[in-house]
Amino acid sequence: MKHVYFFSKGLTDGDRTQSALLGGKGANLAEMTRLGVPVPPGFTITTEVCRHHLITHEMPEGTDAQVEDAIRRLERLSGKKFGGAEDPLLVSVRSGGAVSMPGMMDTILNLGLNDETVEGLARVSGNAAFAYDSYRRFLQMYSDVVLELDHDAFESILGEARRQAGVETDYELEGDALRSVVRGYRELIDRESEAPFPQDPEEQLWGAIEAVFRSWRNPRAQAYRKTYGIPHDLGTAVNVQTMVYGNRGSDSGTGVAFTRNAADGEPKLFGEFLINAQGEDVVAGTRDPLSIDQMREYLPRSFDQLKETAERLEKHYREMQDLEFTVEQGTLYLLQTRTGKRTARAAVRIAVDMANEGLITRQEAVLRVEPERLEQVLHPMVDPSADYTPLAEGNPASPGAASGRVVLSAKEAVERAREDDPVILLRTETSPDDFEGMVAAVAIVTSRGGKSSHAAVVARGMGKCCVVGTKELEIDEEAGEIRARGRTVRRGEWITVDGASGEIIEGRIPTVKPEPGADFHELMGWADECRRLRVRTNADNPADAATARGFGAEGIGLCRTEHMFFGDERIDAVREMILADDKSGRAAALAKLLPMQRSDFVGIFRAMDGLPVTIRLLDPPLHEFLPSERDEIERLALGLGRPEAELEAAVARLHEANPMLGHRGCRLGYSHPEITAMQARAIIEAALDVAEDGVDVRPEIMVPLVGHLDEFDNQKAIIDAVAREVFAERDRRVDYLVGTMIELPRACLTAGAIAGPAEFFSFGTNDLTQTTLGLSRDDAGSFLPLYVEAGVYARDPFQSIDTEGVGRLMALAVSEGREARPSLKIGICGEHGGDPPSVEFCHALGMDYVSCSPFRVPVARLAAAHAALKEQGADGKMERT
Amino acid sequence: MKHVYFFSKGLTDGDRTQSALLGGKGANLAEMTRLGVPVPPGFTITTEVCRHHLITHEMPEGTDAQVEDAIRRLERLSGKKFGGAEDPLLVSVRSGGAVSMPGMMDTILNLGLNDETVEGLARVSGNAAFAYDSYRRFLQMYSDVVLELDHDAFESILGEARRQAGVETDYELEGDALRSVVRGYRELIDRESEAPFPQDPEEQLWGAIEAVFRSWRNPRAQAYRKTYGIPHDLGTAVNVQTMVYGNRGSDSGTGVAFTRNAADGEPKLFGEFLINAQGEDVVAGTRDPLSIDQMREYLPRSFDQLKETAERLEKHYREMQDLEFTVEQGTLYLLQTRTGKRTARAAVRIAVDMANEGLITRQEAVLRVEPERLEQVLHPMVDPSADYTPLAEGNPASPGAASGRVVLSAKEAVERAREDDPVILLRTETSPDDFEGMVAAVAIVTSRGGKSSHAAVVARGMGKCCVVGTKELEIDEEAGEIRARGRTVRRGEWITVDGASGEIIEGRIPTVKPEPGADFHELMGWADECRRLRVRTNADNPADAATARGFGAEGIGLCRTEHMFFGDERIDAVREMILADDKSGRAAALAKLLPMQRSDFVGIFRAMDGLPVTIRLLDPPLHEFLPSERDEIERLALGLGRPEAELEAAVARLHEANPMLGHRGCRLGYSHPEITAMQARAIIEAALDVAEDGVDVRPEIMVPLVGHLDEFDNQKAIIDAVAREVFAERDRRVDYLVGTMIELPRACLTAGAIAGPAEFFSFGTNDLTQTTLGLSRDDAGSFLPLYVEAGVYARDPFQSIDTEGVGRLMALAVSEGREARPSLKIGICGEHGGDPPSVEFCHALGMDYVSCSPFRVPVARLAAAHAALKEQGADGKMERT
Repeated sequence: MKHVYFFSKGLTDGDRTQSALLGGKGANLAEMTRLGVPVPPGFTITTEVCRHHLITHEMPEGTDAQVEDAIRRLERLSGKKFGGAEDPLLVSVRSGGAVSMPGMMDTILNLGLNDETVEGLARVSGNAAFAYDSYRRFLQMYSDVVLELDHDAFESILGEARRQAGVETDYELEGDALRSVVRGYRELIDRESEAPFPQDPEEQLWGAIEAVFRSWRNPRAQAYRKTYGIPHDLGTAVNVQTMVYGNRGSDSGTGVAFTRNAADGEPKLFGEFLINAQGEDVVAGTRDPLSIDQMREYLPRSFDQLKETAERLEKHYREMQDLEFTVEQGTLYLLQTRTGKRTARAAVRIAVDMANEGLITRQEAVLRVEPERLEQVLHPMVDPSADYTPLAEGNPASPGAASGRVVLSAKEAVERAREDDPVILLRTETSPDDFEGMVAAVAIVTSRGGKSSHAAVVARGMGKCCVVGTKELEIDEEAGEIRARGRTVRRGEWITVDGASGEIIEGRIPTVKPEPGADFHELMGWADECRRLRVRTNADNPADAATARGFGAEGIGLCRTEHMFFGDERIDAVREMILADDKSGRAAALAKLLPMQRSDFVGIFRAMDGLPVTIRLLDPPLHEFLPSERDEIERLALGLGRPEAELEAAVARLHEANPMLGHRGCRLGYSHPEITAMQARAIIEAALDVAEDGVDVRPEIMVPLVGHLDEFDNQKAIIDAVAREVFAERDRRVDYLVGTMIELPRACLTAGAIAGPAEFFSFGTNDLTQTTLGLSRDDAGSFLPLYVEAGVYARDPFQSIDTEGVGRLMALAVSEGREARPSLKIGICGEHGGDPPSVEFCHALGMDYVSCSPFRVPVARLAAAHAALKEQGADGKMERT
Repeated sequence: MKHVYFFSKGLTDGDRTQSALLGGKGANLAEMTRLGVPVPPGFTITTEVCRHHLITHEMPEGTDAQVEDAIRRLERLSGKKFGGAEDPLLVSVRSGGAVSMPGMMDTILNLGLNDETVEGLARVSGNAAFAYDSYRRFLQMYSDVVLELDHDAFESILGEARRQAGVETDYELEGDALRSVVRGYRELIDRESEAPFPQDPEEQLWGAIEAVFRSWRNPRAQAYRKTYGIPHDLGTAVNVQTMVYGNRGSDSGTGVAFTRNAADGEPKLFGEFLINAQGEDVVAGTRDPLSIDQMREYLPRSFDQLKETAERLEKHYREMQDLEFTVEQGTLYLLQTRTGKRTARAAVRIAVDMANEGLITRQEAVLRVEPERLEQVLHPMVDPSADYTPLAEGNPASPGAASGRVVLSAKEAVERAREDDPVILLRTETSPDDFEGMVAAVAIVTSRGGKSSHAAVVARGMGKCCVVGTKELEIDEEAGEIRARGRTVRRGEWITVDGASGEIIEGRIPTVKPEPGADFHELMGWADECRRLRVRTNADNPADAATARGFGAEGIGLCRTEHMFFGDERIDAVREMILADDKSGRAAALAKLLPMQRSDFVGIFRAMDGLPVTIRLLDPPLHEFLPSERDEIERLALGLGRPEAELEAAVARLHEANPMLGHRGCRLGYSHPEITAMQARAIIEAALDVAEDGVDVRPEIMVPLVGHLDEFDNQKAIIDAVAREVFAERDRRVDYLVGTMIELPRACLTAGAIAGPAEFFSFGTNDLTQTTLGLSRDDAGSFLPLYVEAGVYARDPFQSIDTEGVGRLMALAVSEGREARPSLKIGICGEHGGDPPSVEFCHALGMDYVSCSPFRVPVARLAAAHAALKEQGADGKMERT
């Protein structure tokens, strides 16, 4: 069995394809060596050895000999001897799994030094300070990771030495001072450690290797693997590499470089560099590094070589590279290359640039950008350079960032917003009553509720920054203030909300709004060429519709009509309708609403000229339109000129134990057909109105909460009758579809029947998830996080479709619906429509479109492209090329 | 085409198998004639003719001639002539569909009389009064059903005649008086009718036939067919039959008879008889009829003949018969025979007797009793002879009847019940808070809620009489009274509740409690031999368990543990647990509950010695154990010695928007594993305790509301760990099963996975219906009745399984569950477990058992037998024999 893979200019066993066996780092070291990139020679002990060791606590047979052999080979290549008193061979030992993973042992440098070889190093380098500093570093790292001694004691010895020498930094210490530090370290180790510090380099080496293996098991690494779903049995490789030194004078140095700018994607070498320093000095941040451009002045030859190498590596890997390098007395060495992390904005630019440079295909460019990250390109964010301490932290529910004045009620929000200052609405939780206030606010904060609460859903719909469930924040409407962490902010004072991090910050913190550039639009264009799924938007007003169209929405998949009912003059008419004693009273109130509804639809139809618009009939239970608090009832009674008791009776009569499962959706239209009729009339009249102006209008009328074919038949009959009536009145007609939301298990189970008369299905996966799982979004906060944490549901099922349960019902509905009506148009309009894994699932089910909030449209477009490309195997094929 | 089927001693075309073509009446007239039973000859016009006429408004070709021919044949048989002036042939015309159906034209008698033939009849009968009375009756019936004139005008002419003659009843009127009545009728008809009264008997006959056909369409008939799901296109037959007269003197008479007593099933001829009367006089009730036994004295020969005929018919039909007969001058005629209606009690006795007499098989006897009606045999009922006017009427939710004193709160119920007088609890609606009050009361009445409301479900569980949704009843707790229909009953006064009719009655009305006799037990024994499904009961305490065992329950399918928590001393501990700040506080409170829980289970295990007992772990959300009203919170705070604000905060914290979909069931056990552990310990310790006393204990521990395999795994691990612990402590062990309630769509969709570790499934069809249909039982009252009325759901889906939706999920769960674990035990413990069609469905799915409330156990046993027999085709085979 081969346990050790050697890499050097003359002989390299591995290559980049072997990252499972050699780890990412080891595979790339081998690959770089093969490419002729200057890499200090070394060898990699495979992950197989680690796996064997994890179980048996022993090395597999033959490992000793192979390591021994590799060390001999390094001795031959370097002309140095491992443990040699003259010119000792020193090595670094680094872990490196197939997946990069923080929390594990990272690095031991200068291994091979002992009380004897340090003298040899001092001699051969002619620099005792360098030698003893190297030994000190080695002793400290070794004690930390192999002997597992407390770090602080070493630091205090070093601090004491600095004090005695009267210097500020370690690298100002001279030979003697360092010698005495080493002595102090050695004594400390002898005192604290069970095992003495091994003088034998071989023993040092095995200690280090085993420490790497042990670190695979440490709690931080375990937690990380659990969080990211990395299998616990992968194991790590160990890389042993000849030391090179960036701290051997002003012709030496060390640094990191990106082949392109990780912040904005600019195609230019980018990074930091320290003269006369070792890698850990860069990390420590005690000295201000130079920029890579400055390196050109100090070490021009090495810079040119680095630049050329970086270009070569990027071309070879066809990806932006993150490099670590060291210059030892004028000679450049590459210590690592890997795919570079980058901001969303940079990711877009790099993908587009690389495709345009011919480095990758357009399809690859599309696959290079994670859809989920795309939203970051569109929303404002808190200036990353701003300095602040948050007042409180909640759950980020809708991205973006905004500053505004504190308001504590919807009414106040509306009023203060009129005064032109932006306002931020803070509520314990929101209800449809707060809708106008939410519209008026630039951000919304709640102290209760989860990511699927009313506030979160509505805010996402409006593309508005929102933080929910900020439990530590006391929102005291009466006192007119909010309190957290011992601090108080009064009504009218400024705060800033970061919807990406969930932070609430006192005062006005600068925010930046990234403008998606040409590269963004170019990438989205390519994505559109790849995808099969159409992408629509959920929008309830012309402004949102226009925004979404700007983001590439190809229609409206969900236009909720209830939000339209909360406007100042409308809510009165709505309440009048609810409180009416009979059908004719209801009809009178509905007649007032009709022209307003019609004008809503006119605006939306115009904004969506040429594109389909799915309008959902009234969905929520009627009590949502009535106030629930005593004083609000009082106020309303006064306003309507009706006895308070009557209102209270109506509120009591309409009260529901489980409103989610109550008298709503088409059940409302079934018991109050005049509401359906009014809405149908408003839609059809609006469609005829705009058609007259030459607008290509494509209304799709959606009946909500259908559970039984008869319900749909009943509502469709009303709609069709109204349409015939209006067509006759106007002597003109317009095409329209009538379909249904599929949001109950029973609708899925009887989809074959419902697809008989229904012309389209739109999955309302929010409610379908609630009913299939028997889980109220509003109440799940008390236990669902536990479930997600424990991995019962890998992701919150309200964010990502539960494919096993909800998805199975959807698959059934799609297949039986299409069997009954092959032309059935099928989409999804739940929150899941903007979630990339859910989009992929919808693609796999063969749906026609997904619909999501305006700011998620680009995410969905890209996710749809990914789904199509993955289906074609494009992702795998590309990786192989 | 044959349109007319003749029946007479000499020639009979039809037989009993042709009821679809000839109607039930016509087929039986033919059958009786074939048997040699004396039936006045006549003929039946087929339902085909009716169907043709309904569409074309014309008779099919050849009908005229065939009717003509049949009339001629009747003339030949009788020697009389249709329209003959000497001795006219008179006939009756009656409708008669395949299914008996009120609301249609019933009968026209004496057709063939006119101004001329009436004189002939007077002459030949030697009785002018008889002739003119016959003509009067004919004119009145004909005017009513054929000419569609107002009934009242005729009655007032007749009344006027009685007044003039100074008599009280019609049959005291003499010839002249009747002659003048006839004249008055004729004038009235000429005045009011568009068409004149036809003197031509042929024309009379066709008018009558068409009236029968028309009456198929009348609104009452249509409504009846809609209600009972009778197809509208069946049509009715018309029976034309030679008249015979029971009003031709003291040697004549008419009556109805049952071959057995319809009230109690006694095997003895039973019925009523009037001397010198026509059939309609029996119905009119103006004269007191004689009993059939008295007929023996008056008309001994006819009585013997009737008795012999009745016995022959019962033997022939192998069913209790309901006969109509007439004796004309000493000659007996049978006018109708049909299966007799009977009380539930009689149904049981008749079925058992007939089987023991060898008339039918035991299987047939089992099929002869409708399971749904069986409950009537067990519950007390309001004395049928009692006379009263109800105070209010609601929905009958749980059968039975009881008198008691009015109480308006649970507390009052408990206190007053201690004083030994029975109490009836009246509430707007009930909540788990009211549980103890419900236990204390003999009946429960609510003004809100439907048959699936809390009150209804709990009352049925306790076999307690309950009326819900009594909207007209104002329950005014503050004023201490109830009001309806302008009347008031004060707290402490007596009322009676009829759970079968839904009536609330002032005062103490006598009730009768039928004792199921030996025949009941004999029938149930036969049913048990037929069925394959086991029947368990839902019982939460030893008393209910014992009752159910008495009714034949073969185990407990659902023992709810939450009801046990509402006891006086327990609720405090429960609340202490809920309000505890941490796990150890909760543990202390749970430790108090443990011995109480254990003793609950000890009692139940003893009552169910040798039978399985399924115990469901705590299911409801915790807020159900806290008060919600301000004053109750105050009281509780005082009692617990905790600040009110703390309690209010807990109530607010635990408040849920949709408790049905909230933090309950195994979600509670997941977040509070110590509750599961306490309950598991109580169960296992109780099992070991009783096992030591030699009880054969078979605990089955049921985890509620599982939606995901991981939830079940989590709870099972806790249960198994506790069991191992207890076994070790006691050094003894006992077998137990761990299974789950299947009550969420997701549980059905992932049943294959859940059946891996789960040893049994029990369908909780109440919640499964709520989630699959997205329908809250508590809130459905505002629209579900509309749906049921419109036939969207043929029956309330909370009473009878919605097989299309919920049933499909169940079928999936059964098949995938059994595939994963062939030995999986499967039952149902929702309310549906006692509903016959649902039991049949469960049988078809191949379940192992159904479980229902104690009083439904016999219903379920019988329904299970029916299901098994129907599956074998036993019902069809028997009908054919």
